[in-house]
Amino acid sequence: MPRYRLTLEYDGGPFAGWQRQDDVPTVQGVLEAAAEAINGAPVTAHAAGRTDAGVHALGQVAHLDLGKDFRTDTVRDALNQHMRPHPVAVLEAERVGEDFHARFSAKRRHYLYRLVDRRPPLTLDRGHVWRVPYRLDAEAMHHAAQVLVGQHDFTTFRDSQCQADSPVKTLEAISVSRVGAEIHLTCRAISFLHRQVRSMTGSLVEVGSGKWSARDLKAALDAADRQRCGPVAPPDGLYLTKVDYEG
Amino acid sequence: MPRYRLTLEYDGGPFAGWQRQDDVPTVQGVLEAAAEAINGAPVTAHAAGRTDAGVHALGQVAHLDLGKDFRTDTVRDALNQHMRPHPVAVLEAERVGEDFHARFSAKRRHYLYRLVDRRPPLTLDRGHVWRVPYRLDAEAMHHAAQVLVGQHDFTTFRDSQCQADSPVKTLEAISVSRVGAEIHLTCRAISFLHRQVRSMTGSLVEVGSGKWSARDLKAALDAADRQRCGPVAPPDGLYLTKVDYEG
Repeated sequence: MPRYRLTLEYDGGPFAGWQRQDDVPTVQGVLEAAAEAINGAPVTAHAAGRTDAGVHALGQVAHLDLGKDFRTDTVRDALNQHMRPHPVAVLEAERVGEDFHARFSAKRRHYLYRLVDRRPPLTLDRGHVWRVPYRLDAEAMHHAAQVLVGQHDFTTFRDSQCQADSPVKTLEAISVSRVGAEIHLTCRAISFLHRQVRSMTGSLVEVGSGKWSARDLKAALDAADRQRCGPVAPPDGLYLTKVDYEG
Repeated sequence: MPRYRLTLEYDGGPFAGWQRQDDVPTVQGVLEAAAEAINGAPVTAHAAGRTDAGVHALGQVAHLDLGKDFRTDTVRDALNQHMRPHPVAVLEAERVGEDFHARFSAKRRHYLYRLVDRRPPLTLDRGHVWRVPYRLDAEAMHHAAQVLVGQHDFTTFRDSQCQADSPVKTLEAISVSRVGAEIHLTCRAISFLHRQVRSMTGSLVEVGSGKWSARDLKAALDAADRQRCGPVAPPDGLYLTKVDYEG
């Protein structure tokens, strides 16, 4: 069966996350329904990152197998046609070998978290940015964030529901900087724990507001204790931006 | 009566434009209702640009008079509180003299038009960008656009409903460039005719797609004939970004 790799963009707002569930709209559910309409038989889609409810994607990667050898442009356009009006789009479809697996072949995940520190409510960016109603020190956040880089037990920044075998992960890089009126946090790792980016972001906001020092963040990490995490950031500002594969 | 100058941001999507109307939500209507709630008596708001249905603002300017001398932070926060959940925000409130008029004192208006040339449908930017489903030549659009700079009879780019006394306006500057995956058209003038930016944008897309040359655009302008305008761009991508005043 021909396998297709899909690059997906979506607004996570109306979805109960990536993973298929009964009775609630999910990205996987919408994509699989569209694929089944084209394929004439059920299709299972696998994603690089099973994003949570409300989390967005600019470059999620998924794969699925179709019964026929369709042109890649046809797969992209037909899936987009069938997914309407849901805010999910296939940006690109490519033919890949059967050894490609969107999740298990992924070498690295990239995330972006968009924040804005202002008192007035959001209008155009509602649901797409986390508004913190007081001034944040982005430079202090960037400096403090560097204590998270490297291999650590990230238990403090791991959701209690996390299914991963081990809390030890390697954060390759994390950066916080002002971009216009926003603060962008970007990070990358081979993989992340459940809610790790939102947990780290929420804790870094404690640094940005002056409530925590960089030393407090380090102590929270070292404690390997979920109770030491700052308030977890909402899904609104989180984007899976890119997934790297070999070659 | 103390006069306040307000800088406003809004998502034009849910509104039938700036101007108050019976039975449909408008930005003026929402703002005046909030101001009346604070003031205890009806308030009239005046805006620099009476944006059309669906058109957004990042820096609209309005003024209104209140019966009491409130602190500017209080005016901003109280208006924002009362305008919930409408996607309108007062970014800033300032005390101004009675000679200040948001519309008549304005020296220059700045607009941004956001386009994206891609085949896949929009997800996160739905309603906030105009998607053109084929490749556009932004450089050709920029070069052609320069024929519009200066004082001209803009009848070609003027809506038939336009109330302005004269079709002669002076376009100070217009620029088209790629910004990431988008194409941004920015322009500024003392004032614009009704639907002038959307009419110019739609015609420039004809240039970007290769259907029109720069010479065709010039001929359309020179004809001073509304029939010669390209398809008018939708409101989705249009933003009133800034209004300049003396001092």
